[in-house]
Amino acid sequence: MRVFGVDPGLTRCGFGVVDGGTGRSVSAVAVDVIRTPADMDLAQRLMGISDAAERWMDLYKPEAVAVERVFAQHNVRTAMGTAQAGGVVALAAARRNLPVVFHTPSEVKAAVTGSGRADKAQVTGMVMRLLKITESLGPPDAADALALAICHLWREPMRVRLEEAEARAKEMAKVHKARLAAAAKQAGRR
Amino acid sequence: MRVFGVDPGLTRCGFGVVDGGTGRSVSAVAVDVIRTPADMDLAQRLMGISDAAERWMDLYKPEAVAVERVFAQHNVRTAMGTAQAGGVVALAAARRNLPVVFHTPSEVKAAVTGSGRADKAQVTGMVMRLLKITESLGPPDAADALALAICHLWREPMRVRLEEAEARAKEMAKVHKARLAAAAKQAGRR
Repeated sequence: MRVFGVDPGLTRCGFGVVDGGTGRSVSAVAVDVIRTPADMDLAQRLMGISDAAERWMDLYKPEAVAVERVFAQHNVRTAMGTAQAGGVVALAAARRNLPVVFHTPSEVKAAVTGSGRADKAQVTGMVMRLLKITESLGPPDAADALALAICHLWREPMRVRLEEAEARAKEMAKVHKARLAAAAKQAGRR
Repeated sequence: MRVFGVDPGLTRCGFGVVDGGTGRSVSAVAVDVIRTPADMDLAQRLMGISDAAERWMDLYKPEAVAVERVFAQHNVRTAMGTAQAGGVVALAAARRNLPVVFHTPSEVKAAVTGSGRADKAQVTGMVMRLLKITESLGPPDAADALALAICHLWREPMRVRLEEAEARAKEMAKVHKARLAAAAKQAGRR
């Protein structure tokens, strides 16, 4: 399975593509940080990010897209731009019928380092170790995008299994209820 | 000039198209509230809003798009979805080479009612009066979208004039500086 991880942002948007192998083995396919100038029109910046995301989807053909879920940040203006950047990437993926899953920063940190409170350096260090990358990845957005893809590869099978188990439990409850109703009807007839 | 006003939102997205005439005369062309179900995938909801915005742009051929600028709201989750909805509409406009301008809620209220602190009912009432609408507009998102378009029609010429005046002032300052330098050179030569 190949996942496209996106750490959204207007000024710096991290893109990372990771392949998942058997077990927990992962390998890096591509990583980059997309930038749009701060003095550019907001709609034009969103188009720049959308175009870049579309190029990457055409080029690397991922099977799923993992985007960081944005929460309130110290800077509200930044948070809004980040949400919009993530939104246009999600839209580009939806237009290609690719599943898009949003992961929170603490889910990503926990998946990659084992702790939801790991700092940037710990995440970057672990991502480099997992993907056997030796040269510097540049701004943390690059490592974050790769971490998102890894998080998705490791969490997704669990999430799908959980959903299936829940669907089975619901079905069982329905069967049980129907049997109870049938038994009650039988008892009433006697 | 025809303006497409958008009050962004995932659950309810207000769309309104208004034509500006001579002076401050305005007339409504179309208004609606686009909805996407809360239990739908976020990327799918964004696609629904993007598709609807594209249909409206194809159908009504606006010359500009005015989107409400989202600020921090009491509910951060809602604010993020609102930002994303506005982002995909801005992207659709940029892809059609339409100018997109973001107006703050207080700019819109001030433009339409004269007060930046007007409440929902005052905005709706004034929008209905200005556009001579007599039947109910439904949820406030509809009136807000029309108010955004009116705000844009009324503010935009002023903004453009201001920009031009600033550019002229800058040019004048440059000329003045060059003349001063020439005079200083001349004085030095004597």
